[in-house]
Amino acid sequence: LRAHFLHGPYPATHFGPKACILPNPTSVMHIQDPASQRLTWNKPPVNVLVIRKIRDESLAEPFKELCRFLVEEKQMMVYVERRVADDATLSKDEAFGSIRNQLCTFREGYDDISDCIDLIICLGGDGTLLYASSLFQGSVPPVMAFHLGSLGFLTPFKFESYKTEVAKVFEGNAAITLRSRLKVKVVKDMLQRTGEHVCVCVCVCVCVCVCVCVCVCVCVHVQVLNEVVVDRGPSSYLSNVDLYLDGRLITSVQGDGLIVSTPTGSTAYAAAAGASMIHPNVPAIMVTPICPHSLSFRPIVVPAGVELMITLSPDARNTAWVSFDGRKRQEIQHGDCIKITTSCYPVPSICCHDLVYDWFESLAQCLHWNVRKRQARLADTSDSSDTEN
Amino acid sequence: LRAHFLHGPYPATHFGPKACILPNPTSVMHIQDPASQRLTWNKPPVNVLVIRKIRDESLAEPFKELCRFLVEEKQMMVYVERRVADDATLSKDEAFGSIRNQLCTFREGYDDISDCIDLIICLGGDGTLLYASSLFQGSVPPVMAFHLGSLGFLTPFKFESYKTEVAKVFEGNAAITLRSRLKVKVVKDMLQRTGEHVCVCVCVCVCVCVCVCVCVCVCVHVQVLNEVVVDRGPSSYLSNVDLYLDGRLITSVQGDGLIVSTPTGSTAYAAAAGASMIHPNVPAIMVTPICPHSLSFRPIVVPAGVELMITLSPDARNTAWVSFDGRKRQEIQHGDCIKITTSCYPVPSICCHDLVYDWFESLAQCLHWNVRKRQARLADTSDSSDTEN
Amino acid sequence: LRAHFLHGPYPATHFGPKACILPNPTSVMHIQDPASQRLTWNKPPVNVLVIRKIRDESLAEPFKELCRFLVEEKQMMVYVERRVADDATLSKDEAFGSIRNQLCTFREGYDDISDCIDLIICLGGDGTLLYASSLFQGSVPPVMAFHLGSLGFLTPFKFESYKTEVAKVFEGNAAITLRSRLKVKVVKDMLQRTGEHVCVCVCVCVCVCVCVCVCVCVCVHVQVLNEVVVDRGPSSYLSNVDLYLDGRLITSVQGDGLIVSTPTGSTAYAAAAGASMIHPNVPAIMVTPICPHSLSFRPIVVPAGVELMITLSPDARNTAWVSFDGRKRQEIQHGDCIKITTSCYPVPSICCHDLVYDWFESLAQCLHWNVRKRQARLADTSDSSDTEN
Amino acid sequence: LRAHFLHGPYPATHFGPKACILPNPTSVMHIQDPASQRLTWNKPPVNVLVIRKIRDESLAEPFKELCRFLVEEKQMMVYVERRVADDATLSKDEAFGSIRNQLCTFREGYDDISDCIDLIICLGGDGTLLYASSLFQGSVPPVMAFHLGSLGFLTPFKFESYKTEVAKVFEGNAAITLRSRLKVKVVKDMLQRTGEHVCVCVCVCVCVCVCVCVCVCVCVHVQVLNEVVVDRGPSSYLSNVDLYLDGRLITSVQGDGLIVSTPTGSTAYAAAAGASMIHPNVPAIMVTPICPHSLSFRPIVVPAGVELMITLSPDARNTAWVSFDGRKRQEIQHGDCIKITTSCYPVPSICCHDLVYDWFESLAQCLHWNVRKRQARLADTSDSSDTEN
Repeated sequence: LRAHFLHGPYPATHFGPKACILPNPTSVMHIQDPASQRLTWNKPPVNVLVIRKIRDESLAEPFKELCRFLVEEKQMMVYVERRVADDATLSKDEAFGSIRNQLCTFREGYDDISDCIDLIICLGGDGTLLYASSLFQGSVPPVMAFHLGSLGFLTPFKFESYKTEVAKVFEGNAAITLRSRLKVKVVKDMLQRTGEHVCVCVCVCVCVCVCVCVCVCVCVHVQVLNEVVVDRGPSSYLSNVDLYLDGRLITSVQGDGLIVSTPTGSTAYAAAAGASMIHPNVPAIMVTPICPHSLSFRPIVVPAGVELMITLSPDARNTAWVSFDGRKRQEIQHGDCIKITTSCYPVPSICCHDLVYDWFESLAQCLHWNVRKRQARLADTSDSSDTEN
Repeated sequence: LRAHFLHGPYPATHFGPKACILPNPTSVMHIQDPASQRLTWNKPPVNVLVIRKIRDESLAEPFKELCRFLVEEKQMMVYVERRVADDATLSKDEAFGSIRNQLCTFREGYDDISDCIDLIICLGGDGTLLYASSLFQGSVPPVMAFHLGSLGFLTPFKFESYKTEVAKVFEGNAAITLRSRLKVKVVKDMLQRTGEHVCVCVCVCVCVCVCVCVCVCVCVHVQVLNEVVVDRGPSSYLSNVDLYLDGRLITSVQGDGLIVSTPTGSTAYAAAAGASMIHPNVPAIMVTPICPHSLSFRPIVVPAGVELMITLSPDARNTAWVSFDGRKRQEIQHGDCIKITTSCYPVPSICCHDLVYDWFESLAQCLHWNVRKRQARLADTSDSSDTEN
Repeated sequence: LRAHFLHGPYPATHFGPKACILPNPTSVMHIQDPASQRLTWNKPPVNVLVIRKIRDESLAEPFKELCRFLVEEKQMMVYVERRVADDATLSKDEAFGSIRNQLCTFREGYDDISDCIDLIICLGGDGTLLYASSLFQGSVPPVMAFHLGSLGFLTPFKFESYKTEVAKVFEGNAAITLRSRLKVKVVKDMLQRTGEHVCVCVCVCVCVCVCVCVCVCVCVHVQVLNEVVVDRGPSSYLSNVDLYLDGRLITSVQGDGLIVSTPTGSTAYAAAAGASMIHPNVPAIMVTPICPHSLSFRPIVVPAGVELMITLSPDARNTAWVSFDGRKRQEIQHGDCIKITTSCYPVPSICCHDLVYDWFESLAQCLHWNVRKRQARLADTSDSSDTEN
Repeated sequence: LRAHFLHGPYPATHFGPKACILPNPTSVMHIQDPASQRLTWNKPPVNVLVIRKIRDESLAEPFKELCRFLVEEKQMMVYVERRVADDATLSKDEAFGSIRNQLCTFREGYDDISDCIDLIICLGGDGTLLYASSLFQGSVPPVMAFHLGSLGFLTPFKFESYKTEVAKVFEGNAAITLRSRLKVKVVKDMLQRTGEHVCVCVCVCVCVCVCVCVCVCVCVHVQVLNEVVVDRGPSSYLSNVDLYLDGRLITSVQGDGLIVSTPTGSTAYAAAAGASMIHPNVPAIMVTPICPHSLSFRPIVVPAGVELMITLSPDARNTAWVSFDGRKRQEIQHGDCIKITTSCYPVPSICCHDLVYDWFESLAQCLHWNVRKRQARLADTSDSSDTEN
């Protein structure tokens, strides 16, 4: 029996009458078929983080409604960012006062809530989910994302039926997509700048993922859901960066920059830069140049488990800039390096329908994929034959 | 401990303090890390199939040399196609006569050798490997492919050192890439043509993979290594085909056609049609339109295990044509359908260096990937600043 | 004074204090600014050719209405193709009988009407205009094209207000776009096939533009409005063709084929093959490869007056096929050549609004150019900053 | 007689028996065929501006050799930028002292030499020619450009034979390409920022093309040879800009930015962003989006004489940045606008061979256009037929 998985069927391991793969138990993985992945709860969820866009007035009412529902009907402990709670429209609304007093607040970068959240609910665009991802640098609680206006790639739920949908998720058994993230480590070589070179990298990860080294290096660890972008930043000069794969120099990039993205990110900036679009369940990493100086620099897709490394080319005249899901932009200098691989902490994103339907629906809705004028049956441009004009 | 595999690390299965994936033992796969896959032999190999291009005179000497080596030094039983053995240059060469008499010959389509070959050795271009793949519709023996002139994507070995290389393979322990194939089934609805519709599909697979149905359907099963192409064939009209994924209509294709390819095929015709290039170890299927009528029909990459189905659109005026790795071209009419999924019979292709090196080497050599004029350090087009002119 | 023309301003012809262009009166062109081109009539138009798609029932009523209007109200002599007049729906309609009897009919390929038509009116898709172009291999009368359903690139007028619009055109002063055509000459070397090589090309142009040579060559002259396509035809093999510009070998094409198109054609098949889109008033010829084997074969745009020549590459194993605006497909063999340059017989296409508006309107309507989901003001994917999530 | 020009043949102006173009003498242009354009001198050239890259040591010797040749053998007055003359390697070289003393020096931005230069000679990459273009905002003297290392798009001459080549140019009759430039005007609306809105734009053009307005607007006039780029600058947010053509809103751009380029610029940044490549003699302007958010935003080519205008979209949250041939980067805010059209001051660039040869040579050398592995005659990937394997 060969089961039919989303990762493909088990490949045969015997080849002709006499050859086979040398079994190597230490390198066997046990993967549960993504198509069968369903959410369950060890204990009933209690703490819910609600994320909304600030500054979008149209979200105020849905946000209040959702909080009231969670607090009053579901007896949840609701967490919101302090500046959300302090928002004028909220604090001035007396009717909401009693709910507001029951909200737990936290400040990004000061209070670590990453260990106490059972479920995340997002209200707004794809940006809210990227923000949620940034708050959880380790394990990420399940995320349920509502779009208020138009469908997003990461926000499949309509708000209209939020009560039913949230109730269903609390019950367990929701289909989830594990959206892989990239684990990125930026090693800044402080010594190169001072002349000496010892490079004793002792990283101590703090919650917000800034590691402070003893004396010579500064490492930054970040988990990204969409992409790492290395570009020329504010400079108007071409950047020159080298790309290594598992320690081997693969190519040099001359152009506006380079995007290393997850399949989730393949429909974001990478798509704008010309990449093919990859379903989130394909275990892969996409490498896409930004406006490359070469006509033949086509995007490539490599297996999820490789380690990529990016440095300034030895002959680069200018520095480069790196950003993570569009945030935390910083400069990269000679001697620094960016190491990227697939993280073991994916974002468990709750599906509205299923893995496949949700994706193709958002390709059509968000990117107008293959939308075209339907040609009339009996007439089209290239169809001007003698007999049909 | 989370091992680092080519398919990515084990993803965490607990999400925040209370959520986890519902374990489902029936949907767990055990995958051996592709990066660790090495060839071994249950019994010493005896039967070697040697494939060479016909009509390329430059291959005659290497071919004879290789046969002599296998027969005389290695005591192998060497299989060649009859028309190869009957080739004039070979049959006229008296010095080669004794070797030639010891060769086993077979005729494609008549003699089934798929159960008795232990190793395949190819001499020539990528076409020889596609041909080898077509001979083995089930399990494929390991393939070792030599390029005589320039490197091919599928032919990593240089002929110069063939003795050493072949000897190493006989010893076992060679690194192999399992190149996934697509299993394609063409169901031709004979009834629609006669008016009635019963569709009792009774397939009896014969070795060369043509199944004869009792009365109403004709199925064709084919394994492809590069791609299935559906196009307008000799017609000058646009074809209109519908693409289904796991039974759901995904999109309609108006244009010259559609390519469904393996990662191996992503560097062949799909690359010409604009696709991103996928490493052979990514478990995925690539879908690429050929000259689509729509500006927004970007290629997509879906997980290896999905089932794709292609039919003529209900309103298509013209038939379409399907071909398999460039061979066996046939017409597709209303009522017919093409079903495509990942096969469990990959082609075990012996690596020259390793999975990664071989691929990037061939990207550079075969496709000139990101080859460009290196800009001089202090001068480039877009670098005409005030201070540097 | 330097006038502002659609071809650009007069360039200065003095360069610095002492240099200038050597005046060469024999190479001076007098070009009227395309933006100012308006239609006028030497004598009142009398003979109107009406072209409609056959087999599209929805066009029957508008067609009859238009004919009645032209014959009864405008006292025009209306020409239609015989098979249009003989169409069952028309001939069975007794109410239309009297009008039908007054129609002049002709048969394509038999009756030459190219000297007696004053105005062409097209009903239907872009194909009707391509067909009209094919009927007039020399001077083309003004063309007024109505779309019945959705807007076409070449059919800007809505049928609803046809009476007013046609009346306006009869009055003269309509804005027109001169859509350049390509003059294509296929020289078939018959001798190469018989062994000898004399190549005395004596062309006698017949109206339908097939030239019969005395004994050794066959030339075909064709005017195309969209494009000349050279492809692999029914063959499944790559074609190899050589491209010459003004007699010099520019490049060799390995792939599915090559498109040489007018700016008008740049939004048709060339766009599907990845070309940039060129406004019809740019005096240029576009060269676009179809699925080229090379990653770096970008489409190019060359000046309108160059002469392109296409032949099979000396080492091509297969023949190629050429077609003209999707019609008259024929085989090209070793020794044949295709010569292409800008024709001096453009198609004067009557504008609905103006040159620029009509084009951008059809880019949006026909090709959904740059149609996208408008991002909400305060939220977008790549906009997940710390302060705005 | 219909002459054959690079702009195409004279189009017929009679259409069928009765229609013709309404003659409009005021809109007739007299264009000399670009293919026939040759340089002549009213008076013998005396003042030669030599431009070289700074900081490239390898240029020091050729530069000195050229200056010595011009001063001693040709009795020219040689102009160089002051910082070039003051360069350490030059000033320390005693043997060069006497020549150096005869050089005329100027400072960019301070000394206006635009009226006294008869010929420009560039040594180095394409950047030197862009720099030369920036020094001459009006009429540009003929430019002769030498590449020292590898061929550039704008630097066709080899230095080896400089004496012969320069002598030929002095004699006159060299073939020249008039490379069109874009005239760009940035109107900064100062009032919008102060609240009031009068917009009396009184521009007084100063040599370095910064116009100071009386009180309310600041205009900047620039001539660009490659392109105007509007992008998001140092911001990590998408810019939103609106594109107008002849006063009409054509489309809105969401993405990294927009490139408006000359045909010369189509092989520079625009090519990196995916544009087709346009021969410098096509009178056109190219519009190319940079990483657009829309899958269907294909580059377009519009006639040379149109006026494009770019503004921030009314709902843009961020400013945009504009740069000119990679220089003079500045911010664009709400109320500002950028107006772009073809300039009447092209750069007369002296050809090494001719217009066509030089261009295709540089496509191949600089961009590796359509460079590919030549497939062996009897074997290729997609050519694995039954009979040929």
